[in-house]
Amino acid sequence: MKIARFSHTREGSSTPAIDYGIVDDDALVVLAGDPMFVGFETTGERVPLAKVGSLLAPVIPRSKVVAVGKNYHEHAAEMGGEAPGEPLLFLKPNTAVIGLGDAIVVPPQSERVDYEGELAVVIGKIARNVRAENAAEHIFGYTVANDVTARDLQEKDGQWTRAKGFDTFCPLGPVIETELAPDAVLRTRLNGELKQEAPISDMVHDIPSIVAYASSVFTLLPGDVILTGTPSGIGPMKAGDTVEVEVEGVGSLVNPVRAPK
Amino acid sequence: MKIARFSHTREGSSTPAIDYGIVDDDALVVLAGDPMFVGFETTGERVPLAKVGSLLAPVIPRSKVVAVGKNYHEHAAEMGGEAPGEPLLFLKPNTAVIGLGDAIVVPPQSERVDYEGELAVVIGKIARNVRAENAAEHIFGYTVANDVTARDLQEKDGQWTRAKGFDTFCPLGPVIETELAPDAVLRTRLNGELKQEAPISDMVHDIPSIVAYASSVFTLLPGDVILTGTPSGIGPMKAGDTVEVEVEGVGSLVNPVRAPK
Repeated sequence: MKIARFSHTREGSSTPAIDYGIVDDDALVVLAGDPMFVGFETTGERVPLAKVGSLLAPVIPRSKVVAVGKNYHEHAAEMGGEAPGEPLLFLKPNTAVIGLGDAIVVPPQSERVDYEGELAVVIGKIARNVRAENAAEHIFGYTVANDVTARDLQEKDGQWTRAKGFDTFCPLGPVIETELAPDAVLRTRLNGELKQEAPISDMVHDIPSIVAYASSVFTLLPGDVILTGTPSGIGPMKAGDTVEVEVEGVGSLVNPVRAPK
Repeated sequence: MKIARFSHTREGSSTPAIDYGIVDDDALVVLAGDPMFVGFETTGERVPLAKVGSLLAPVIPRSKVVAVGKNYHEHAAEMGGEAPGEPLLFLKPNTAVIGLGDAIVVPPQSERVDYEGELAVVIGKIARNVRAENAAEHIFGYTVANDVTARDLQEKDGQWTRAKGFDTFCPLGPVIETELAPDAVLRTRLNGELKQEAPISDMVHDIPSIVAYASSVFTLLPGDVILTGTPSGIGPMKAGDTVEVEVEGVGSLVNPVRAPK
């Protein structure tokens, strides 16, 4: 099942509404509220896709975007190291989140801004000291992410917060898919050219292990997002580029890149 | 002016209410809503301090706790380095926030959990690319913080996210004070013994510079909190200890330390 967060303008209204909906063929079935908090009750309204204003980031975390560094062996190697024995966690702020089609803005402080295509896990139920074998109960679904990184600032600062925290540096979308094939392939394309391609089964620490580990550090709340790491093939983007991250069965997240205004 | 967030049980009610209030002698004047979003309109109700259930963390950020590393020269030296030329930013999750009197829980993963007494800035107005000379317009007030840190994990991980992100690792309080003396002294006491003492004027990067710098990376939202760094004298705490961080004119933040249940 695919869940979208979207804007639309109802007939007779002059202001757009923002709703969650279930994707059903060529329409969205409107949900009564945020399904991560109130479940899947529908209002009965169907919005044809042609009348959808835009798909929005499917979730803006109330608490945190947790991310895992160096979680594919070949990417760890291209960064000049090995994958760590435990997941290496960092945070991105919710102010970095954008959705499908929103522009990634290259900040003036950086000379090199990279794409990092990733699978993202969306938490659906409070998780604290969860065991890996129970992790699935706490997962609402999956979306696609781009862990945009100012590579030069990552190296300069040591701490990754600034390099990965700029506004627009966490594209999420296009939707949340509640099911995931364990061998789904992740691909990143820059201006149509394939740059990253790996099955998510290549992860060093798998999804249940990551959820368990993160939940042993901080309480995970509904709507929290975990980025599960990027495969090899990372590289720079510049203003005017278009970047696409695709996870088979989940969707394709396309964002233009632009200079600051 | 001092602003508290507190719980209290009204006569005739069986469930406690949570409100913001202005401290006025021996009572709290109840505010109509969160003053960071809706200003200082009062409801007319006065709650005597004797009837206050407890003071709560004065703010739970909707977006982020930004913190600055190595922002006092002597602390940078005791950590074996120099203060960086630009503020070194990291994030703590809002799930780490606790209030006055709440217990700091020593996680089983760490053998050494340290106090770091700090002054915290509370943002009151959206800030994006703010200049230092205009920073004051975006500040709601000031509170006291303890940037609790698992020192062994900080060194092990390299990234500070886990070491500084555990639940209960961000005590804030007791209240928000809207005014601040530029030479206020910060003191940390462990079991009553003075451990840290420095005027906040010893900061390497001052408050306006920090707000400006942080706002050049991420949009700061009302209720976001910035921890401005700790002076020298950091050290370990253990279960059974009591830690107090005081900033003159702002308040005294006392928390017990305990083992996990």
